Parts: sequence; structure tokens; C-alpha cells
Amino acid sequence: MAKNTQTPTLKILPLGGLHEIGKNTCVFEYDDEILLLDAGLAFPTDDMHGVNVVLPDMTYLRENREKIKGMVVTHGHEDHIGGIAYHLKQFDIPIIYGPRLAMALLRDKLEEAGMLERTNLQTVSPREMVRLGKSFVVEFIRNTHSIADSYCLAIHTPLGVVMHSGDFKIDHTPIDGEFFDLQKVAEYGEKGVLCLLSDSTNAEVPGITPSEASVIPNLDRVFSQAEGRLMVTTFASSVHRVNIILSLAQKHQRKVAVVGRSMLNVIAHARKLGYIKCPDNLFVPLKAARNLPDQQQLILTTGSQGEPLAAMTRISKGEHPQIKIRQGDTVVFSANPIPGNTIAVVNTIDRLMMQGANVIYGKHQGIHVSGHASQEEHKMLLALTRPKFFVPVHGEHRMLVKHSQMAQAQGIPSENIVIVNNGDVIELTGDRIRVAGQVPSGIELVDQAGIVHESTMAERQQMAEDGLVTVAAALSKTGTLLAYPEVHCRGVVMTIQPKLLEELIVRTIENFLTERWS
Amino acid sequence: MAKNTQTPTLKILPLGGLHEIGKNTCVFEYDDEILLLDAGLAFPTDDMHGVNVVLPDMTYLRENREKIKGMVVTHGHEDHIGGIAYHLKQFDIPIIYGPRLAMALLRDKLEEAGMLERTNLQTVSPREMVRLGKSFVVEFIRNTHSIADSYCLAIHTPLGVVMHSGDFKIDHTPIDGEFFDLQKVAEYGEKGVLCLLSDSTNAEVPGITPSEASVIPNLDRVFSQAEGRLMVTTFASSVHRVNIILSLAQKHQRKVAVVGRSMLNVIAHARKLGYIKCPDNLFVPLKAARNLPDQQQLILTTGSQGEPLAAMTRISKGEHPQIKIRQGDTVVFSANPIPGNTIAVVNTIDRLMMQGANVIYGKHQGIHVSGHASQEEHKMLLALTRPKFFVPVHGEHRMLVKHSQMAQAQGIPSENIVIVNNGDVIELTGDRIRVAGQVPSGIELVDQAGIVHESTMAERQQMAEDGLVTVAAALSKTGTLLAYPEVHCRGVVMTIQPKLLEELIVRTIENFLTERWS
Ligand SMILES: [Zn+2]
Ligand SMILES: [Zn+2]
Ligand SMILES: [Zn+2]
Ligand SMILES: [Zn+2]
Repeated sequence: MAKNTQTPTLKILPLGGLHEIGKNTCVFEYDDEILLLDAGLAFPTDDMHGVNVVLPDMTYLRENREKIKGMVVTHGHEDHIGGIAYHLKQFDIPIIYGPRLAMALLRDKLEEAGMLERTNLQTVSPREMVRLGKSFVVEFIRNTHSIADSYCLAIHTPLGVVMHSGDFKIDHTPIDGEFFDLQKVAEYGEKGVLCLLSDSTNAEVPGITPSEASVIPNLDRVFSQAEGRLMVTTFASSVHRVNIILSLAQKHQRKVAVVGRSMLNVIAHARKLGYIKCPDNLFVPLKAARNLPDQQQLILTTGSQGEPLAAMTRISKGEHPQIKIRQGDTVVFSANPIPGNTIAVVNTIDRLMMQGANVIYGKHQGIHVSGHASQEEHKMLLALTRPKFFVPVHGEHRMLVKHSQMAQAQGIPSENIVIVNNGDVIELTGDRIRVAGQVPSGIELVDQAGIVHESTMAERQQMAEDGLVTVAAALSKTGTLLAYPEVHCRGVVMTIQPKLLEELIVRTIENFLTERWS
Repeated sequence: MAKNTQTPTLKILPLGGLHEIGKNTCVFEYDDEILLLDAGLAFPTDDMHGVNVVLPDMTYLRENREKIKGMVVTHGHEDHIGGIAYHLKQFDIPIIYGPRLAMALLRDKLEEAGMLERTNLQTVSPREMVRLGKSFVVEFIRNTHSIADSYCLAIHTPLGVVMHSGDFKIDHTPIDGEFFDLQKVAEYGEKGVLCLLSDSTNAEVPGITPSEASVIPNLDRVFSQAEGRLMVTTFASSVHRVNIILSLAQKHQRKVAVVGRSMLNVIAHARKLGYIKCPDNLFVPLKAARNLPDQQQLILTTGSQGEPLAAMTRISKGEHPQIKIRQGDTVVFSANPIPGNTIAVVNTIDRLMMQGANVIYGKHQGIHVSGHASQEEHKMLLALTRPKFFVPVHGEHRMLVKHSQMAQAQGIPSENIVIVNNGDVIELTGDRIRVAGQVPSGIELVDQAGIVHESTMAERQQMAEDGLVTVAAALSKTGTLLAYPEVHCRGVVMTIQPKLLEELIVRTIENFLTERWS
């Protein structure tokens, strides 16, 4: 990474979020200055035994820590802010700019991790511009997404403006009345955008993602039909959805008991900041809710993805200390399962039904919409920004390819588009984009004790598949057994009696010792 | 299970296949005689470490082995015949009746397991009736499904006729020209059906499952557009689909190299029995295929579900010894991922695309249809059979509930329907159906070494999550350490130096010993 002394060059290094949905982390580097854009986490897949959190490989930032001028945050989802507390343990980020809700959620995380003193959190407003170092000025542009207070970014660099879509859909009837600032986006398009980096999550989905408002009549119908208790689960971070559910609770004269730490946390912040408006007396503690008639209760919980420890999962297993399903309960899943969670979700639904709940779920109900743009919205953003160069981000490989095909159909030449992987170094000059190398990439797995390395993970996997036999044998210096060896089996399938297996192992050791020392 | 001396009673005990898709196994019992209907296996979920195959708990059949008069098989899918070889190791099944293709596939399995001598395989033809014991006569009625040679069964018992749908869709334009024998089904409906047990797999899906023939024009289009090599993956057991792919290969003048053991096996049997008709010279060995021009090659492989060891998965990882993806290759997934496999499948697709393949996949392409009936077909079967009692089978709980709601809408009173779980004992008299108890149910997990018990699985899970530390300490009789203890860590996350951890453990042991003996 020697300093480029010829053509001025902007480097963009996505360390996470490419070829995956999760842990979005992007580095912008110009003239020995680094600007960090988002730093998220991902959740472990089933084969990452005992792992709580997945982070990108941060070697590059550790090694270039002195260049870091600061960070900008697009919105408050875990896949965009969840990594920051971990990274601050390893290097400093002098200042972090972001929207109010994201900064409020981040403050909690940093406080919990004891990292709040390590940086300076600054809230920004729509169309606010902030300077970072000599090279970067960033304008925050309101967009629409499933969480309130979400932004596109216009990053002014010495080479020109790089726009980053953030996570977005184009919702013309947003729940909070905060419209996508399309005028500002168009203004940048008119003045000239050097490069666009854009969310590819739903690039494979034809048409337009329905407005968040479209779920209101459908949830209203479900609420009307519920005769007993009502339990609703959704993503805690889907602030607009939570808002809708609370408004409908009020309309249908149900008191709301909120269950699950992240749900309580998001609602508290969103109310404090005015993203959710409802009277205090809409809420009741869970214990008080139980004294109300069934048709005046609404329990709002986490667990829409069948997460093992979430409230709805424990309720479905009959393991929740306060909430037992009864005949007549209506349970509403106002969320679609993320592909890796499908089995966990349908199992949860089945368990709830078996206990007598009427479970409302699935795409046909119209009670969930995505927070990400579909193809027609992508075309619109490309048309508004008219970028010279294009980098599809925030998506798996198929989605990036589809997004790039759309951009080509709208006139961006294929040589002006790069499909990159985590760790690729994108080099941008005024008239060329290319991948100019690789920095260490991959994942860091975090369990309760710290970072789990790949070799450790492989050992865990092997023990899980085969089990483990330990043999303790005390030997004299001449190689004779001093005592009968101890054999222990864990997770081992035995087709013969354990006692016989043990004897067999002992005899083998004895033979080995005899031969070795004889 | 004392013999019922009063009202004559038929017992139906589903040991597997309820509240799940897989390991369909059903016991019919009347007057000390047992008829077994299908005996399938299921594949392990991600948390069943090292397990190859999942079987139902067969305690009831082991304990009642002398009652078993024989078995009937509906069709040759693994979830219907895959368990038989394992069960024959534990009890005898004097005779097994089934369709030709299922019996051919089963013969292979029994031969491989050395169990062929333990039973008598008998092939049946459409409308053939077989007697088992004094109590049962079974008529085999042709239906349509994704595998050739599939049947509904009419089981004549002293109480009346119980119909079992088998796995079915109603395909009016079947690939093999073998139509669903709706006339025979209607005849039973006219004479009177005591009880219907029916496939619920797609009971949540509105409308009609498209005919298998509907994929032909779409696959034809994909084949026309492929300019380089063509690789196609589907379920080996989807005989009709394989047939279509082979016909289109012939039409587009491509030679077919078949890769993957189960694919080779099913094609061999289906050709021998006439379910697949194509000339010998359509096939070439993989090695010979490589000498043909790219546009004359078609590689037909297993791995449509992203199975770790299947050919397509290994190709995508660049680990297949003979097949490397090249720019210009077209890879076709003519199968939808089963929910638990989604992640494995999309990862496979992404890897193939990254190597330069044009991958054709997904619902919008029209290159896959289900082999199971949707709601309108279920209504039709219920209308044709007009059963007095109804038991939805072959499905997860949600699907059984939906199926039962459809039956009620068609006039079957709710008290004439039971939704049961594996191990439930359904008791049927001429005028009542009820669940009258439970026999042992659950799963038996089989890994390479034999049956894996739950405690073993729990040990494996724990080692996978936490890792394992072993300490070997040689003690004298007076409790002093004879040597420096050996400490080994496997899969353990260490925040301190391994050497330090070891010393800490040793010191702890020494302290423990001192205190214990002092
Ligand atoms: Zn995101
Ligand atoms: Zn987001
Ligand atoms: Zn089946
Ligand atoms: Zn089947």
C-alpha cells in the first residue's frame, strides 16, 4: 500500500458485506487518510459451534490504525453498527457520525462494552455535511428503510462524489412521514456522481417492494379477528412495523406487554426520539397483563426468526416462565424467515399450533414486506444518480451479478463496474475503476471467551462428528504400565459393550508398550 | 395393547412421517396381525453431528415382531423404502409387495446390506390385489408422482376399506403416459371408504401443481440458449425429470455423461424397466465427453440440494477431480431447495457463478415443479373418495391442520378427523375414530458405527460448543503427583497463552491434591 505518487487514487476496501448479507464494513482511503463506513456483525451459521458473533477480518485496519480519521454510519441495524464495540478494543476511531437512532443504539452497546470513552459519537441531521480529515466531506441524505432514521451518503472526495445508497427501499408512503430525499439524490445526479455503491439485497426480485404501509390493513384484519389473547412477533429493529403494531393495539383497545430485551430497548429509544408516538398507558408489565381479559392483551415479543433463546421460541417450547399458550390465542409472525432460519421458524409455528394457538404467518397474509429495494427501485436509483462507475454491494454473489446486469442495461459500460469480494482493493481514478489487490479478509468468530480461530473450529467440528476417546496411562521410565489405564469415551458410538472396548484399548496399549521397549 | 374382545377394532400406528417430511412408516393392526405400509428414512438435520441416516423408533415392531404378516410399498422414494434394510436386521418381514421400480431399488439396498435373504420381494401391477394374513387384502391403484410407478392403496379390512393416497399429485399429462387411475378411486368412493390417509406435503399451497410436462418448454429454451457445456442437476429419484432431460439432450444433440452414484443407479433401473427410453449411444463416459466439443456435452449430476459430498457441490468447490467449471458453461438447477437446504444450495450457485458459469435456477424459470398435490387436487381426492374418517399424513403440523380444514369444508365432521403424531395409536371402529394411546416414538440416529443415542449426541454437541480439556495426572497411592501432569486442549478458546493455561491447571491439581490428602 505504498502511497501513490502519480494519478490521484481513491481506494475503496469492503471488508465485509460482500458475497453475504451481514457485517457490512467499508474503508475509503485517500492520501493516507481512512474513512470508515459502517461496521456490522453477522450471526454464526450452524456449523460455527459455540460462536456468538461473526466479524470481518480487521487486520488491515489494525495495521493502518493511525490513518483512521473517523467513521460514518448509515443506519442502526446490527449488520451496520454491531461490530463497532469490538473494533474499538483494537484501534481508535476518533469520531463517529450517524443518525440519531443509530447513535442512541450504538451508545448503549459501547457503554455495555465499556468502550464509550474510546470515541466521540456525533448525531447528524438530513442534508448535514461533515468533514473528516483533509480528503472527505460527507453529506447525509434521508432514505427509506425498515428502521427509522436511515441515510444514503454522498462522500465528497478530491476525485469526485462517491454515493453510497445505504440500505434502502423507495417507500412513497413512509410510516413516519419522512420521505426519501429524492431531490437531493437527483441534484447529485445532475452535478455528476463518480461512483455509486448500492444495496443489492433484493436485486433478484422483480417489481417494486410494497410500502410498509401496505401491511396496515392486513394486520388490522388479523387483529379484528383475534378473539383471545394476541401475541405478535417481528424484528425488534423494524421500528416502523413496531409502530404499526402499537397503533393497531391502541385502535383495538389492547394493552401491550413487551417481552424480550432488544424489543424493550428499541422501543425505549424510538419513543424517546419521537419515532414511535403512543401514550405511556398503552404499555403494561407482563404480570399486570395477565389480570386483563384475554381480548385486551397484546404481547409483543422477539423471536420472529426462531432464535433459540428468544421469547417466542421459549413460549413455543412451553419453557417461558410467564407465558403459556392457551386454546384461543392468536400468534402473528409479522416477518419472513431469513433463508437460514426457515426450519427454526416453521418448527416454532408448529409447536405453537400444537398447543392450540391460531398462528398467522406466511407470504399470502400480506403482514410483512421487505425493507430493501426490488428491481424497479434499483433502476430508479441508478437513473437518478447516473454514476460513472458502479459497485453493487450488500448482497450475495448472485444478487451482485443481477444488480450489475441492470446497471449495464441502463448504459453503464461493463468495464465501469466491478463485482468485488470482501478484502478486494478497489482503485478509482477519475477515469478508471479496477481491483488492484487484496488485503486480509475472512472472518473472526467471537464466542464468550474471545476470538475463535479456524483450527479451533475444525477441532470442535471433528469432535462433534466422531466423538473423542481419551486414554490416560501412567508409565515407568522403563516403559511398563504403572497402573491400569483409564479410558474415557465422550460422544462415541459403540457397537460393542463399553467395558469390552475399554479392555481392547488397554490390551492395545500393553502390546504397543511391549513392542516398543522390547 | 391387550386384544380387544368387544367391538372389532383396526389400529393404525404411524411410526414416522407425521409432523415431518420423511421416514414414512405406518403400521396397520387387526386381530393380532400387522401389515406394514412403507418404511422410510430421513436425513439428519445440522445438529445431528456425524449422523448419516435417521430412522423412526421401531420398539413397537421389535416387540410385536411375531404379528408382522408382511409389507406393502407405495413407491420407491427414500422416505418410503430407505429404512427397510435397517429394520430387517432387527425383525423379519415375511413378504414385501410393491411396484416394479421400488422393488428394483429396494433389491439393491437389501443386497448391499446383506439382507436380501431375509425377505421375499414381490412386484405388483396396477389393480392387482394381494392378501396379507387373514385380515388384509390390498389393491394397488396407479397414481402420479415425481417418481415413476407410484401407487395409492386400498386396504380391505374386516371393518371396511382404508385408502392410503401414497405420495401423489394429479398429473393429467404424465410423462410416461401412465394416468392416475381415477376411475378405480371413484369406484371405491361409490362403494364406500371407511377412512382416507392422504399426503399433506403441499396442503398449504393454493391451486393446482403444474404438470411435470410444463417444465419441458422451459428446459428446452434453456438448452437452446446454452452455447458451451451444459450441466444439469436434479433429484436422481425424479425419474420423469431425468427422462425429460435425456430427451432434450437427444434433441439438442448433446451426449450425456452421468455423474453421481444414485443418478447412475436410478437411470440403470429405469431404463431396464422401460420407464426411461433412450438409445445406448446417448451416453458417454465422463472421460470420453471431454473429447467432444463443448456444445455436444451434457453432464447430468447429483447435488441439486447442495449435499456436501454430491458431484455438483464438489464441482462448485473446484474439488471434483474430472470437472472444472469454465467460462461459458451453463449449469441448470432443475429442482427447488428443500427449506433446510436453501443456504447450501445458494452457496453452491454463488461458487459456480464466481467460477464463470451461467447458472439457471429459481422459481421464475419454470424448470421445476413439485411432485405433490396442491389444495385443489386434495379437494378432488377427498371428493372422489368421500371417506367417513380422515387422517392427514406425510406433512408437518401446519400442513396437517390445513388439510384437515379442507376436509371439514367438504363435509367431513371434525370428530371424524384426527391429527396425529408419530407413535399415536389410532383406533378405528365402524363408527368412531380416536387416538387411544401412544407407543414409543422418536428417532434412531445411525452413523457409520451404528445407532447413536441421544446422550452421545448431547456429548458431541457439548464438545462442539465448548471444546474439551483433558488432564492426565499420575498419582502415587499417597496422593502425590508422580510426574508433571499432561494437559491437552481441543477446540478450546484461550484468551491467555496455552502454556500459562497449562501451568494454571497443573497448579490447581496440585492444590487440590494437597488439600485432599492433607
Ligand atoms: Zn443491512
Ligand atoms: Zn438495514
Ligand atoms: Zn414421500
Ligand atoms: Zn415420494
